[in-house]
This record gives sequence, C-alpha cells and structure tokens, in this order.
Amino acid sequence: MLSNMKVSQLCEESGVSVPSIKFYLREGLLPAGERVSATQAEYGTEHVERLRLIRALIDVGGLSVATAQRVLEAIDSPDLPLSYVFGVAQYAISDTSLYADVPETGPGAAQVAAVIERMGWVVSNENPGRRGAARVLDTYDDLGQQHIAEHLADYAEAAELIARADLAAVAHHTDVADMAETVVVGTVLGDALNASLRRIAQEHVSYQMFPAPRGTETTGSEA
Amino acid sequence: MLSNMKVSQLCEESGVSVPSIKFYLREGLLPAGERVSATQAEYGTEHVERLRLIRALIDVGGLSVATAQRVLEAIDSPDLPLSYVFGVAQYAISDTSLYADVPETGPGAAQVAAVIERMGWVVSNENPGRRGAARVLDTYDDLGQQHIAEHLADYAEAAELIARADLAAVAHHTDVADMAETVVVGTVLGDALNASLRRIAQEHVSYQMFPAPRGTETTGSEA
Repeated sequence: MLSNMKVSQLCEESGVSVPSIKFYLREGLLPAGERVSATQAEYGTEHVERLRLIRALIDVGGLSVATAQRVLEAIDSPDLPLSYVFGVAQYAISDTSLYADVPETGPGAAQVAAVIERMGWVVSNENPGRRGAARVLDTYDDLGQQHIAEHLADYAEAAELIARADLAAVAHHTDVADMAETVVVGTVLGDALNASLRRIAQEHVSYQMFPAPRGTETTGSEA
Repeated sequence: MLSNMKVSQLCEESGVSVPSIKFYLREGLLPAGERVSATQAEYGTEHVERLRLIRALIDVGGLSVATAQRVLEAIDSPDLPLSYVFGVAQYAISDTSLYADVPETGPGAAQVAAVIERMGWVVSNENPGRRGAARVLDTYDDLGQQHIAEHLADYAEAAELIARADLAAVAHHTDVADMAETVVVGTVLGDALNASLRRIAQEHVSYQMFPAPRGTETTGSEA
C-alpha cells in the first residue's frame, strides 16, 4: 500500500503528469489529498487507482473530461440504484452525434419497437439505444441498404448475449461501489471490445463465405 | 430518375450545401459532373446517392473526410477482392486512438489469441481487432477489472453471430459494387447499431437481475 505521497510521487506512480493531476483535482474528478501544510497535501493508493480509471475513461473510452466527471460522480454515490448508474454510463457514451435528438422520420423507430417486442424486452422509452438504433436503421434506408434490417433479430440476439455477460460481470462483486465501477468501465470500454471482436469474426466468416476473390463467382469461367 | 441538374439543384435534392458539394468534388469524394460549358456541369441521380453515402459515413459513422475518401475509393474499385474492401472499411473505423499502436505489455494479446483459437477462427495477425481487443483487456487488467475477461467467450460468441449476419447482408447482393457498399456501410454504421442494441438489452437484463434498488440486498432487512 502506498500512502503519504507528494504530488510528484503520485505523478511517477500513475504516469499522469503533474499539471493533469492538478487539473483533475480542481475539476473534482480526483478527490483532494490529506492536507499536511498550507501548501502541501499527501496522496495514497486510492488516488493512483482513481487516476488510472480517469485515464481509461478518457483515453480508451473516448469520454470528454466533463462526461468522465459525471460518470465518476455516479460511482461515488453508493446510494444510487444500480439501474441509475447504468443509465449514467449509457448516456455518457451516448454523448455523441449518433444519439443526437434527430426527428424520426424513417422506418427505424418502428423497426426498433418491433424487435424489442419480438425479444420480449422490457425497456423504457428513454433508453438512448432506441434513438441510436433508429437513426442507423433510417440511414440504411436512406442509402438503399434497408435489407440489412432483415438481420435485426440476429443483432438483437447477439446484444442480449452481450448484456447477459455484462451483468454477470457486475454480479461478480458484492460491494456496491465495485459493482458501479464494473458497470461504468464495462459499458464504456465494452463497446470497443465488442467492435474489435466483430472485426476479428468478420475476417474469419468472410473467408469462409467468400473464399474466392470478389467477382470470380460470376466471371470465373471467362478467366 | 433525375439528371441534368445544376449544382444548386443537386444541393436542394441532397440537402448538402453548395460549398460542401464543391469541396467533395475537389477532394474526389464526389465524381465530376458532365461538363456542359466552361463554367457549368450537370449532375444526375448517382451524384445524389453518392452525397447521401458521403454524409452517412461522415455524420453517422463519424469518419473524417480523408478516411471517407479512402473507403469510397475501395467501393469504386470493383476489381478489388471483397476481403480487401472489408479490410479498408475495418481500418477506416479503426482509425481512432483505441487502435493506436501501443506496446502490448499486459495479458490482453494472449487472451485474444486464446479466444481466437477456442472459437476456431482463422484470422491474420494484421487484423486491427486483435490490437483493439487486447488494449481493452489490458485496461480492464490495469483497473482491477480482469474478471470481465472471464466472459470473453460469450462476447466472442456474440461477435460471430453478428459477423454471420453482416456477411448474410453482403451476400444479399450479386453485383460486386453493391456488395462493397454493404460491406462499408454495414461495417461503419453497424458498430453504432450493435452498441445501441446493447444499451437496450442491458436495461432489460439489469432489471431482470437486479429488480431491487442497489444495496437493498444487504441492507433491506434494516429498512
């Protein structure tokens, strides 16, 4: 256990620069150290761990400082219901143009509602995923790629598998603060993990389904 | 079918501003129109469709103009193997800090290799998903959340389900240019669709698994 660290040692231990540490302290992302004189404070292991979490949310999860702050506040409030912490984490990573409140004029919203019913999911109207999914489906429609929506049930099936694994990881903990941290870390970084695994699986499946170079299926006999 | 449109009509038809259209023409994202005088050119339906695709890649997919250009070049080259087009689309959306070439010092790379073997996937070492997944797993480890990796097989299972749906959507077409467009659109926008469906499924599963407010499991009897 490390304790009684000056800010320079905290910098060394965490790999985060002194100006960044001071900025996180000022913005409330990092709790204040124990004041030992008018100009000095001391820091412990919990500060090193919090700095790692801050950098993971910002560097790997791509959150802004303001969004990371909102998410950390939720972790720091053990009296909040877990479903609320989920909500905060979901909105945090939904804080992109994708989920912008665009008027839903296309078929996406109805397609999303239909797949939710088919899956038997119980979901509030405020879930940001509804808007995000509807927007992508509307865009497929605009681009003449509406046939992709025929596979929506498969994508939903995969999403439920992922969500069950997500929640199993949360249930690994008994301490509520640990559960909240898994919700946040797993939700924010899990999208990147799932997208990466999709890249890998796509390569495998595409070689299985299209072993020959594209085009040879129709022109091969003329080659 | 629209044809013989001036640039102002193209703007009206596509909803893309004239300066943006001129920029896309200059940068080669939009093919030139048919020149009808020294200062005027005419555009057709294919230009409206291409503008929609450009805006979807940039606005919904979050690609930079340079990356969108690289992706469109792949669509425009019908002689490229489909697996190559997949590669271009994958690298395009992998063009973020997440997939940055960080030294792999943690356990992530080995965990990724193990799950690839377990799934029986045949995947090149260059697949950008390997690096992305390893980076997230290393971050889980840094944050003391290594237990999330215990569910890696479930996430991989979901990824294969998704990839099979992706490729089924590609196989919907017979024309190679259409296939390439589905690869690009589905790969770039599909991540957003999958993340959105995960949001929705998480809400459903979390209410199933944690129906009571967080904390009441341990303190409920004292309430």
